[in-house]
Amino acid sequence: MNKEQVLSIVQENLPHAIEKLKQYLRFPTVSAQHKAIPETVEYVVKMIHEVGGETKVLDNLGGNPVVYAFFAAGSEGDASKTILFYDHYDVQPPEPFHEWNTEPFDPTIIDGKLYARGAADNKGDLVARLTAIQILQQQAGGLPCNIKFLIEGEEEIGSPNLEPYLRAYKELFQADACIWEFGGKDENERISMVAGIKGMAYLELTCVGAEIDMHSSVGAYVDNAAWRLVQALATMKNQQNEILVEGFFDGIEEPTADEKKVVSELPFSEEATAALYGLKRPLITAASQVDPREAMVFHPTMTICGLDSGYTGEGAKTVLPKSAKAKLDCRLVPGQDPQHIMSCIEHHLEKHGFTDITVTMINGQKAYRSDFHHPFVTHVLDTARVIYDHEPVLSPNAAGTGPMYIFGEQLKLPVVSTGVGWVGCKVHAPNESIRLKDFEEGIAHMVVMLSGFAKALSK
Amino acid sequence: MNKEQVLSIVQENLPHAIEKLKQYLRFPTVSAQHKAIPETVEYVVKMIHEVGGETKVLDNLGGNPVVYAFFAAGSEGDASKTILFYDHYDVQPPEPFHEWNTEPFDPTIIDGKLYARGAADNKGDLVARLTAIQILQQQAGGLPCNIKFLIEGEEEIGSPNLEPYLRAYKELFQADACIWEFGGKDENERISMVAGIKGMAYLELTCVGAEIDMHSSVGAYVDNAAWRLVQALATMKNQQNEILVEGFFDGIEEPTADEKKVVSELPFSEEATAALYGLKRPLITAASQVDPREAMVFHPTMTICGLDSGYTGEGAKTVLPKSAKAKLDCRLVPGQDPQHIMSCIEHHLEKHGFTDITVTMINGQKAYRSDFHHPFVTHVLDTARVIYDHEPVLSPNAAGTGPMYIFGEQLKLPVVSTGVGWVGCKVHAPNESIRLKDFEEGIAHMVVMLSGFAKALSK
Repeated sequence: MNKEQVLSIVQENLPHAIEKLKQYLRFPTVSAQHKAIPETVEYVVKMIHEVGGETKVLDNLGGNPVVYAFFAAGSEGDASKTILFYDHYDVQPPEPFHEWNTEPFDPTIIDGKLYARGAADNKGDLVARLTAIQILQQQAGGLPCNIKFLIEGEEEIGSPNLEPYLRAYKELFQADACIWEFGGKDENERISMVAGIKGMAYLELTCVGAEIDMHSSVGAYVDNAAWRLVQALATMKNQQNEILVEGFFDGIEEPTADEKKVVSELPFSEEATAALYGLKRPLITAASQVDPREAMVFHPTMTICGLDSGYTGEGAKTVLPKSAKAKLDCRLVPGQDPQHIMSCIEHHLEKHGFTDITVTMINGQKAYRSDFHHPFVTHVLDTARVIYDHEPVLSPNAAGTGPMYIFGEQLKLPVVSTGVGWVGCKVHAPNESIRLKDFEEGIAHMVVMLSGFAKALSK
Repeated sequence: MNKEQVLSIVQENLPHAIEKLKQYLRFPTVSAQHKAIPETVEYVVKMIHEVGGETKVLDNLGGNPVVYAFFAAGSEGDASKTILFYDHYDVQPPEPFHEWNTEPFDPTIIDGKLYARGAADNKGDLVARLTAIQILQQQAGGLPCNIKFLIEGEEEIGSPNLEPYLRAYKELFQADACIWEFGGKDENERISMVAGIKGMAYLELTCVGAEIDMHSSVGAYVDNAAWRLVQALATMKNQQNEILVEGFFDGIEEPTADEKKVVSELPFSEEATAALYGLKRPLITAASQVDPREAMVFHPTMTICGLDSGYTGEGAKTVLPKSAKAKLDCRLVPGQDPQHIMSCIEHHLEKHGFTDITVTMINGQKAYRSDFHHPFVTHVLDTARVIYDHEPVLSPNAAGTGPMYIFGEQLKLPVVSTGVGWVGCKVHAPNESIRLKDFEEGIAHMVVMLSGFAKALSK
């Protein structure tokens, strides 16, 4: 099928797909608030059965159920090749409600956009993928390969229970390649995909100086937990934003020349970024003459996400705080280990005399980067070129984080993330939406991608 | 009158004084919450009239009214000498209510202690002073000198309107010496008095990096306001707690040898201090081999009272904060100027490249230290020896702050602070109380002090 044929078939199936998605979006599946889990799972299972898949609802290892789905290759398909889709049925909390222009769980179409919590992240993607499967099943010879799904219900709370399921059901989820949950178009309407993800060591540093808050006049002789924390942090990164913790960069896998080339060609506008966030200072990469694209993809970070000590209200309170806390988010690249990062920071603090500062790991995940030359990666990119009007963009890894490493480690497969979002879809924010045009093209891309999947992998 | 005679007369007057104080304490005069101001002023005026004083309620210069009181010297008194008492009729907010064992505005006597918000700070002192005056007026010949009061209603919110009143009514409040509002007994039952007070530059440092909070993944190239603030603060004080801001120590008046001697003899126990606050680290004066007493009285401080940036709740939120704030309390000694301190910090930040950090003055007050050899200072100390069982302690200045400099500057008089509190009276906290024994002795001390005041100043 060529582009026009595919899009024509997708358009025929679109009204039904949109109705199905709207129904799915009516479930307020907020994992952080334990809402609507069983009924959403039931609906997901129903959608899969409707398009001819079989399911297993896995719920014996804790947390919200993980839905497994399987669609067998058709009579003319290649049953020796299997693709796995990773999705999640849970969504972010909708709060603050007053900032929504429509009801977050009453999906509403306005000007070609479908508004609802979860439309972009990631209910729209699951329905797009199931619709692509339905379209392929209507073709003579059926599905071109085996298709599996792993649909979890705790992505929005950090996938705390995913690893045990993947380890226990490794055989069940075994596949040759994986399509990850998200993706979409950038400011220039280019579909933006990634073949990997950064890791994370999200740490909390706590300094306790005393059992009670004190009157600040005792600052003449009592040590101050807030000053201690400030001094400690200042030894970890210098004013040039260089991370000074020994061992922090241990094990980092150098990107290949090809990966570097791809990244150097990623679209990026310093002006647009500065305008988007209202930045008051130049990018930190300017001083070090580093390409911000390279920093985004290949460099680990150490970001203070929060500082908290003593009195933070209006005006003056003369207190010498008993304690001080910092939240530190280290984004990691392949080869770095969150536990090792934590140890390095602990050793650093000890070496600098800050034995009164404790470090707690809040979230630790390794990075994952697929082989950029894997035929699957090339195939997803090539088929995107068939459907999308603009040249697609594929980055070796995202700047963000997700549980991709667990898939890579357990299933040993290449992963590409692509989806039906766009830069303005307000993921995690009020007025989340997808554009129906992107939804349509996303279905079409999956139709084409799945059609040639087995052949691409057999090359 | 000797000690026994004085205490006997005080005891006669005590029941009436306690009733008067309880009535005064029933007004919930919380200046921060604009509560009960007019009715409290009316009651203060009534108390003054009852013991033969005349009053003016000054309210033409903004803020809560300032009550002026005047008691003329008796027929045998010395009308050429005038003493001024500084008090305030406002109190701290009583919150948190659930931590009170009694109602904060329903004064309750339990085991010789009178519990109520304001009992120690400073309603008890005003009633003690008025009771001493009443006792002296019952003696043949009446009051031994002229007595004035300045009773303000905004001390607990930083006396923001006091200076204009003192400047405009300089003549009205003119006196030869001043008794300040507070004081009380230490852990060893010694009455602890001060002849001065530290100043303050309470500053807020703000770094704004962007107009909106960002996803922390952009930390690879976007500068971070929290890191900027941490780095800036770390240049202002080193790990040895030395203040590194150029000009910070400008103009400091060296304490005299006598003042140093007195301070070196102040009671202080490092163990007791560590136990009181539950300190986790040694005093900062230990490393520099400074006497903590000397640091408390003679050294300026730079204390972080608060740090605030980004996400400070439970767990992880992956945010790159748009801004970061620090509250900085610099306690100043005589000769230092809060405005100069602020300028020095601004210059320091500029010199170190932190032009993106702004400094705001929240509270600026100069220090004040009376001539330690002034006959008035000696007289207050000597008369304390008459009444109190234990050797009194008089420090050149307190570690805390108050509007004493305004009095010193406008009225050019020596000031000593003493009162009816004790170390356990929980000023500003729930279950504030005074011990009735301290109240009684405080009245007696004022009777003896006033009796010999004119003669002491004529020496």
